Amino acid sequence: MLSIEKYQEEFVKYLEEYSNFKEPKGLYEPIEYILGLGGKRLRPVLTLMTADIFNGDYKKALNAALSVEVFHNFSLVHDDIMDDAPLRRGEKTVHEKWDINTGILSGDAMLIMAYQLFENYESTTFQSLAKLFGKTALEVCEGQQYDVDFETRNDVTIPEYLKMIEYKTAVLVGAAMKMGAIVAHASEDDQNNIYEFGRNLGIAFQLQDDYLDAFGDPKTFGKQVGGDIIENKKTYLYLKALEFSNESDRLELSQLFESNPENVHTKIELAKQFFVSTGSAQATKEAIEEFTKQAFSGLEALNISEDKKHLLKTFGNNLMNRTV
Amino acid sequence: MLSIEKYQEEFVKYLEEYSNFKEPKGLYEPIEYILGLGGKRLRPVLTLMTADIFNGDYKKALNAALSVEVFHNFSLVHDDIMDDAPLRRGEKTVHEKWDINTGILSGDAMLIMAYQLFENYESTTFQSLAKLFGKTALEVCEGQQYDVDFETRNDVTIPEYLKMIEYKTAVLVGAAMKMGAIVAHASEDDQNNIYEFGRNLGIAFQLQDDYLDAFGDPKTFGKQVGGDIIENKKTYLYLKALEFSNESDRLELSQLFESNPENVHTKIELAKQFFVSTGSAQATKEAIEEFTKQAFSGLEALNISEDKKHLLKTFGNNLMNRTV
Repeated sequence: MLSIEKYQEEFVKYLEEYSNFKEPKGLYEPIEYILGLGGKRLRPVLTLMTADIFNGDYKKALNAALSVEVFHNFSLVHDDIMDDAPLRRGEKTVHEKWDINTGILSGDAMLIMAYQLFENYESTTFQSLAKLFGKTALEVCEGQQYDVDFETRNDVTIPEYLKMIEYKTAVLVGAAMKMGAIVAHASEDDQNNIYEFGRNLGIAFQLQDDYLDAFGDPKTFGKQVGGDIIENKKTYLYLKALEFSNESDRLELSQLFESNPENVHTKIELAKQFFVSTGSAQATKEAIEEFTKQAFSGLEALNISEDKKHLLKTFGNNLMNRTV
Repeated sequence: MLSIEKYQEEFVKYLEEYSNFKEPKGLYEPIEYILGLGGKRLRPVLTLMTADIFNGDYKKALNAALSVEVFHNFSLVHDDIMDDAPLRRGEKTVHEKWDINTGILSGDAMLIMAYQLFENYESTTFQSLAKLFGKTALEVCEGQQYDVDFETRNDVTIPEYLKMIEYKTAVLVGAAMKMGAIVAHASEDDQNNIYEFGRNLGIAFQLQDDYLDAFGDPKTFGKQVGGDIIENKKTYLYLKALEFSNESDRLELSQLFESNPENVHTKIELAKQFFVSTGSAQATKEAIEEFTKQAFSGLEALNISEDKKHLLKTFGNNLMNRTV
């Protein structure tokens, strides 16, 4: 086993070798650009680490890890168009630096390239990886569609919201780990259990993202604290606050989340007061803990050493404390 | 072997069974819509017919045929966004009926669904189909990029143009046929020869489309005659005319293809005069014949009965005479 930093390093080295594309430049330069923007490369690192955990060789998982990262970046390029986002990792988004058509077409190419990265595996591994990839990729699209739909709906339920973040974010974390297990020829039970670990951890992570958006430390959160509130995003915090409110509070809160005031500071403070007073902040913390516990409980059944289980737990805890 | 009409019928029946999608509606309704718009279903028919030609069972090729059709429609949805096209087969395009974001996301889902349609084949067939699909799909993206690039270039060469139409159109025709051969477990030589037949016929077909745009019969052509000239499209006719022109004619012709006059009739007539007087119209006809001959010559090597070769030739001739 390597350290997280070492997996990152090995992955980035492999990515750089890969990022040497041919003509037409108009198609491949944006791909090189977005793949080179950096980030923590958490998903591919999980693929490599999982392959090692199941006594595979992380080197054999490099193509699968790269596929996960290329797919993730495909979804960023297309989502950024849909969200009209100007910046990604502090740099211009692809459709801003080039144009929307370039973003569409280069994104399409990345989705195909992600599939192609499985081609060097022998046929049964190839089929397992491609099937998991297809199922996951379609769920990510469905999650994005639910996210779009929820913007104009006022009756989103908590189970619907959880399904949305599961599809949009968590399944790819589960799939990244399961791919490492597939390449390492782990048993089907182990493959499914590590998928569940990743999936539950992914949901916990996304809920924590919702929580930190309101209550995080501006110095360490990385994004603008209160950003979801400013944008009227119906997060877990908001939906739970609605659920726990009496009728007049519910009206006030939902009106607050239809407003776009100049003074965002007051709006953020008001929203946070609602989140605390209704018990939604507390309920969100409990949900995060519940999904994290669920993730860890799945580890028990894995057919790996206690040391490795401990390692996965440490990784999970570090992730939830945002130190990786 | 069935008749073309019977293959179409069987395919449409299978497509209708398939087009019964689940939630979220915002993602799947546009997919059902575009797949239901009709068309001749030539590509999937070629897949089914080729499977039968190599003594496979066309029924076993239905999923591969569907994959080809779903992929083709994915590319239409995304291309229509890029081309800002309002109509497709006389009906609203997806991004017009819904919006651009819907077009992007539903298109993405279709690309994934096209891959998923291979999942029911056993693993070596799956891998062969998926590899061919990936290579072809990426070439289609590259072809689209070249097409975009050529719009703003004044130095496009004939070989570059031929590569563009090969990638954008012809490789999918070749791949559709090769998929039928793969499903039927044809020999590798037969697979490659039938691919070449489809690819060359696809190039001939596209060149003929260029020719008919200027010289076709308005009653039978299906599109507006002169449409390429109005839009200043640098087709084979135009590029050959430039090549065969003296310096002053070259200037006049290229200026004509930068103009957007109200009176399109005069522009179309002028362009056609250039195409005839320079010898470009004749050269285009010869190129069409050359690629058709090339396609047919590839049939000789195929390990199939003379009857079946005759059938493929008849199909090719009907296609070039636009009776199928």
